[in-house]
Amino acid sequence: MRVYLDNASTSFPKAPGVAEAISEYINTRAAGLYRTVSGKEEEIFDTLFSLRSMISSLYSYNHPECVAFTRNVTEALNWIIKGLFTSSDHIIVSSNEHNAVMRPLNETGIRFTRIPSDRKGYNDYSSIEELLTNDTKGIIINAAGNVSGAIQDLSIPAEFAAKHHLLLIIDTAQASPYVDINMEELGAAAIGFTGHKGFLGPDGTGGMILRRDVAERIQPLIAGGTGSESDSEDVPHTLPERLSPGTENMTGLTGLECAMRYSLATLKENHERAMQMTERLYEGLERIDGIEIKGPGINERRCSVISISSDRKDISEIASLLLNRGGIETRVGLHCAPSAHRSLGTFPSGTLRFSPGPFTSEDEIDHTLSILKEIMNE
Amino acid sequence: MRVYLDNASTSFPKAPGVAEAISEYINTRAAGLYRTVSGKEEEIFDTLFSLRSMISSLYSYNHPECVAFTRNVTEALNWIIKGLFTSSDHIIVSSNEHNAVMRPLNETGIRFTRIPSDRKGYNDYSSIEELLTNDTKGIIINAAGNVSGAIQDLSIPAEFAAKHHLLLIIDTAQASPYVDINMEELGAAAIGFTGHKGFLGPDGTGGMILRRDVAERIQPLIAGGTGSESDSEDVPHTLPERLSPGTENMTGLTGLECAMRYSLATLKENHERAMQMTERLYEGLERIDGIEIKGPGINERRCSVISISSDRKDISEIASLLLNRGGIETRVGLHCAPSAHRSLGTFPSGTLRFSPGPFTSEDEIDHTLSILKEIMNE
Repeated sequence: MRVYLDNASTSFPKAPGVAEAISEYINTRAAGLYRTVSGKEEEIFDTLFSLRSMISSLYSYNHPECVAFTRNVTEALNWIIKGLFTSSDHIIVSSNEHNAVMRPLNETGIRFTRIPSDRKGYNDYSSIEELLTNDTKGIIINAAGNVSGAIQDLSIPAEFAAKHHLLLIIDTAQASPYVDINMEELGAAAIGFTGHKGFLGPDGTGGMILRRDVAERIQPLIAGGTGSESDSEDVPHTLPERLSPGTENMTGLTGLECAMRYSLATLKENHERAMQMTERLYEGLERIDGIEIKGPGINERRCSVISISSDRKDISEIASLLLNRGGIETRVGLHCAPSAHRSLGTFPSGTLRFSPGPFTSEDEIDHTLSILKEIMNE
Repeated sequence: MRVYLDNASTSFPKAPGVAEAISEYINTRAAGLYRTVSGKEEEIFDTLFSLRSMISSLYSYNHPECVAFTRNVTEALNWIIKGLFTSSDHIIVSSNEHNAVMRPLNETGIRFTRIPSDRKGYNDYSSIEELLTNDTKGIIINAAGNVSGAIQDLSIPAEFAAKHHLLLIIDTAQASPYVDINMEELGAAAIGFTGHKGFLGPDGTGGMILRRDVAERIQPLIAGGTGSESDSEDVPHTLPERLSPGTENMTGLTGLECAMRYSLATLKENHERAMQMTERLYEGLERIDGIEIKGPGINERRCSVISISSDRKDISEIASLLLNRGGIETRVGLHCAPSAHRSLGTFPSGTLRFSPGPFTSEDEIDHTLSILKEIMNE
């Protein structure tokens, strides 16, 4: 038996048809977009157009030309951070950011102050005005915690950003597509997304959607040939070409397009299913001695991620036993987000994380709980 | 009939087994490397290890940990250029560089001087010493021209770089795997490669191999979670993690690993085949009135790329007619390399480019020549 409970790292299984869509692309269509004079070019263009349209609808921002694709959300956040801020700027970040945000900030020397977090992983915005400096240019919020599962309120930082003319940046890696994020209403400057988690697409995909004025002025992290305006050795101003340097990852994006059509069409059922499994797991975990559930309660605003710790057994050992005895795959450690663990009080030991997905079954949850109980009773 | 003659944009067909390898990965293995506690992790690690080993052998540099993967060679060249130089540095580039080199230079304000080129597309190194300034820190050479097909001598720039302590950077997009490039012997600081051209892998893949000291000190273009040293919000120093931010594109890299095993095992035959087809095409083109072949002669150092121009007919029209009448796919225009066209005297009109691959047949070449002759005779 294989029980996959690490959907917060990458979803598994992928959406139905992803492998087939990629195979078909590789076997029949491969041709350079904006490059080859080919009957196949239009199909590739259609795939990208479909993807851009779905993303722009999902985030309620009617500018499909402002969507760009990257290898992962980390790369998108690097584009956003390095393209919009310099080391003379100051920005505000939550205490629940991933290293995809913290490492680029530290590496480029951009100063930052953290919004405090409560012990459940919710941002505490009560003193946010005090974090403002004369150099503050932006605010970055992780919409849903990959460690705690807490879904953050976005309206307060949105109002704050609007009031002080800050660029609001949202990391939706764990939040999308289930958390409703309205870019237009929030006035967000940039949203980073990943393709291989909630969208059920292949790894190697992700990207960003930028507000039109931001897309026009962002300093491109990566510059190169775009198959357009090739008489110039400067980056073109045309969108989306400005944000699409080099050969596109059509292999991955063909899979993502297939996955997104599925995951957006089944969004409601999938979300309900993943949350039902999360509740079942949460309630079972509450009844196992020696385990402490971190993060929000099951009835609070949360996503399908549960972190636990234990003062009785080493969590790495628990994870190994879960795998070896029950074929149960989880993730253990800091999940690339040390700051989030400081919020929860689980730094540096980390947590054991379970993240069910829309394809997780009751049996798998019950099996997991039963093996875990056995381990904890030894 | 479909005749694909744009292998210099992206190879088609891909190596046998690529689609199947990717499908199998997506359907059975997807799991976060260094993330999920999973029985599948080892297989993913093995795929990456195999890839790193093949690349490090191919370029004769025994440091597989210094190989990093990117979305395309453009991204790799951006990592290299932006990670090693600043706007106070000066570098020397060839006149045959792609916009993957020229646009990042212009965008970051790094000053550069071009090595002159002859009209065939070969670098003219005769006055290279005169290009040196007190601030010169590096030299970038495109090993094989994507417009002219000219294969450059690398020993002269290598000696020059060694003598003046410059970082030698080689773009192998069109050259690999057919041109022998010995990183150790050349003392190259960095090599950028692409996965979807000569290696016959899927698009979305490419990367770089850096000299160990360069890998250790390069400023990472993209920083983020690496699944390692997660207690730190700084980029780790460990290799290859330092160069692998965020979730790896295992979908693409699984395909590349399969493709590279094939393309390196059949390197000699594939090269001979592609060159035979190039010769057949070249000789046929010479016999068609109204066409001028640009770049090196067929017996000079060249790769399987032929650019033509015409003073009798518009090359875009020729390309359309080739497609519509004969299903022949080519590329027309500047091929993202305006500088290379200045070398050949084909700026800004561009060229019509044919690039046969190892799977091109005699019949396809003859069909192309026959349709082209018909078009030119009208």
